[in-house]
Amino acid sequence: MTGGRAILIDRRRFLTSALAGAASLPLLSEFSRSVLADETGDLVVHGTSPMNAEGNLAKLVESWMTPVENFYIRSHAPVPKIDLDAFRLTVEGLVERPLSLSLRELAAFGQYSTVATMTCAGNRRSEHSLIKPVKGVPWREGAIGNAKWSGVLLSDVLKKAGLKDGARHVWFEGLDEIEQSSGIIPFGASIPIEKAMSDTEAMPGALLTTKMNDAPLNGDHGAPLRMVVPGYIGARSVKWLGKMIVSDRPSPNHYVATAYKLVEDGTPVEWAEQAPIYRMPLNSAICIPASGAAVKRGEIQVSGYALPSGRPGDTIAFVEVSADAGRSWTKAELNSPVRDFCWVLWSARVRVNAADSELIVRSTDSRGRTQPQTAEWNQKGYLFDAWHHVKLQTR
Amino acid sequence: MTGGRAILIDRRRFLTSALAGAASLPLLSEFSRSVLADETGDLVVHGTSPMNAEGNLAKLVESWMTPVENFYIRSHAPVPKIDLDAFRLTVEGLVERPLSLSLRELAAFGQYSTVATMTCAGNRRSEHSLIKPVKGVPWREGAIGNAKWSGVLLSDVLKKAGLKDGARHVWFEGLDEIEQSSGIIPFGASIPIEKAMSDTEAMPGALLTTKMNDAPLNGDHGAPLRMVVPGYIGARSVKWLGKMIVSDRPSPNHYVATAYKLVEDGTPVEWAEQAPIYRMPLNSAICIPASGAAVKRGEIQVSGYALPSGRPGDTIAFVEVSADAGRSWTKAELNSPVRDFCWVLWSARVRVNAADSELIVRSTDSRGRTQPQTAEWNQKGYLFDAWHHVKLQTR
Repeated sequence: MTGGRAILIDRRRFLTSALAGAASLPLLSEFSRSVLADETGDLVVHGTSPMNAEGNLAKLVESWMTPVENFYIRSHAPVPKIDLDAFRLTVEGLVERPLSLSLRELAAFGQYSTVATMTCAGNRRSEHSLIKPVKGVPWREGAIGNAKWSGVLLSDVLKKAGLKDGARHVWFEGLDEIEQSSGIIPFGASIPIEKAMSDTEAMPGALLTTKMNDAPLNGDHGAPLRMVVPGYIGARSVKWLGKMIVSDRPSPNHYVATAYKLVEDGTPVEWAEQAPIYRMPLNSAICIPASGAAVKRGEIQVSGYALPSGRPGDTIAFVEVSADAGRSWTKAELNSPVRDFCWVLWSARVRVNAADSELIVRSTDSRGRTQPQTAEWNQKGYLFDAWHHVKLQTR
Repeated sequence: MTGGRAILIDRRRFLTSALAGAASLPLLSEFSRSVLADETGDLVVHGTSPMNAEGNLAKLVESWMTPVENFYIRSHAPVPKIDLDAFRLTVEGLVERPLSLSLRELAAFGQYSTVATMTCAGNRRSEHSLIKPVKGVPWREGAIGNAKWSGVLLSDVLKKAGLKDGARHVWFEGLDEIEQSSGIIPFGASIPIEKAMSDTEAMPGALLTTKMNDAPLNGDHGAPLRMVVPGYIGARSVKWLGKMIVSDRPSPNHYVATAYKLVEDGTPVEWAEQAPIYRMPLNSAICIPASGAAVKRGEIQVSGYALPSGRPGDTIAFVEVSADAGRSWTKAELNSPVRDFCWVLWSARVRVNAADSELIVRSTDSRGRTQPQTAEWNQKGYLFDAWHHVKLQTR
């Protein structure tokens, strides 16, 4: 078991047992706060140093609200050890009144909750690699989950600090320590100030959360404090949040200035030309049956998820499944709430007749946009949003 | 003739004569340095205050190198009156040695020439308006041209000034005066420092030009000094260049921070999320026959241009024309040099049989990418790059 290396999903059974044994070794004690894939396979583990794991697809579609034990974990460094009494969130930069807030002081702001889907920009990366190999965690379709997030409004904290003229972006910094060739850096993100202040009655622009699904955040999900930015890729929802800086520009942190951009050649010019990714794209996936599953010819049950883009107001209008290479499409039933910033769970009954059939899903949103048939390959394997295919062994 | 208002192209004959008359009126004397549409119809004029005109399509495809009199003009303000003796280009910001260069001092840098296509981000905007109306100059397909540009390397000037640590973007400011509700501003742009320094033997990253097609720049095209950034939308090639500022971020000028972005809803959040457009997209257009032309059934000659994307190394691989709604495609002949950053002129013979036929063109580049069948509508009508259609009256 090599730390930080990606592990193929088809080795899951082997790994799950290997990890169960390894977890008790002293060498792995730094991961003691990490959820490891348990015997029931809630998570598919890609690596444990740092912890990167995605939800088991069959379990993901069981519930619109994803249980924490089935919720994907994306980390760039081990879970930091944080002294809760000494913890302070600092707010600096273009503000009238720099702040240093204890967890108790933070809790004194008004409490809000919202349901929003979190997904990694690299979800479905393994499909990019079928076009041309990309590095990074080889996520399948499970780097996604939907949860209730509770905490205080970012806008309330920023109002307390008082924005100065020229404030255009808010930077977030984690308390984690990521080893890079240049040295140790924290994970960082930033969002435009307009997004930070864009609260509506139904959805905050961003929330400083301490709870996930009504329980305190655990270490893997960013305890004690996690930024949650509904509609944006997971990388903007910084875990173990320790510092915010209000600035006139996006964060210069590696994960804003370099990573999490769509580039094809990866030349210095192209990295510089491309902007940070913010919104998640319209997407969908078949979760059941699993890829490679053996099914009998005839009518079968198919289920999965569909995700609207991170644009406010965009919702899933309909989801279609094809069992004949796109010649005909069956509209799926939507079995969950249909809201912006949240996934929808769907199911459909389709007839598979051919040997070695393939299922395809595509979703269409409330603006009439449909996922593209193919996705644009990019160097880092982000935002794979093409129609999703699942090959079956049809008998 | 109302200043700055868009004028439909099908009124060209009327306008050409109207302008020919108007040009001699004292009221229009401030445009005396502008090329007005002449009797031979080199340019299709959309407005004269400021001057905005596009190339006559039939003339555009006559020559790979576009004559100045047929070259589109995009202005945001009248041509400024510039005293050539007093003129200085200043270079400020994150540089070791701020510069103030006369035209003579600029000329002392090494002289370079390159051929590159310039195109407005709004070229083909009128096709966006068929989906949903957009404001702005209603460009058809003629806001494009290919020219030889001569001057000095931006990188040489920046090396002379000496870049300081943290230099990430170079801002350009024109000497024009644009009236906005907030007051008078210059036209501005910026490009990443990597692009500015990305010279190759074949193509400079950017050139400070004084000549176009071996003749001194005229007023409409930015005399005495125009930035030319091969591969980028025309808006980054600032005319009447007077100032450059090296910075750690993109220019805050309206034409970088707000305009020239792809937004759909146009909410403040969306404007903030979107990055400035830099590269021009893969594109093509049919120039002959003209839209609405009457042709006899049978084989006809079709010609037009195709433009590779602004990505270094991308060239046009092939161009296809269809006369049967895309059921069959004829490969066009490429009649000009095939180079990156430059358009290609093409021609094809296709058979039109149906009444009221339609021709379609699409181009494919050296990476195997083909123009999309439809384009994404956006608020400002930029980068329309769908297959181009021309309706005919077939007898």
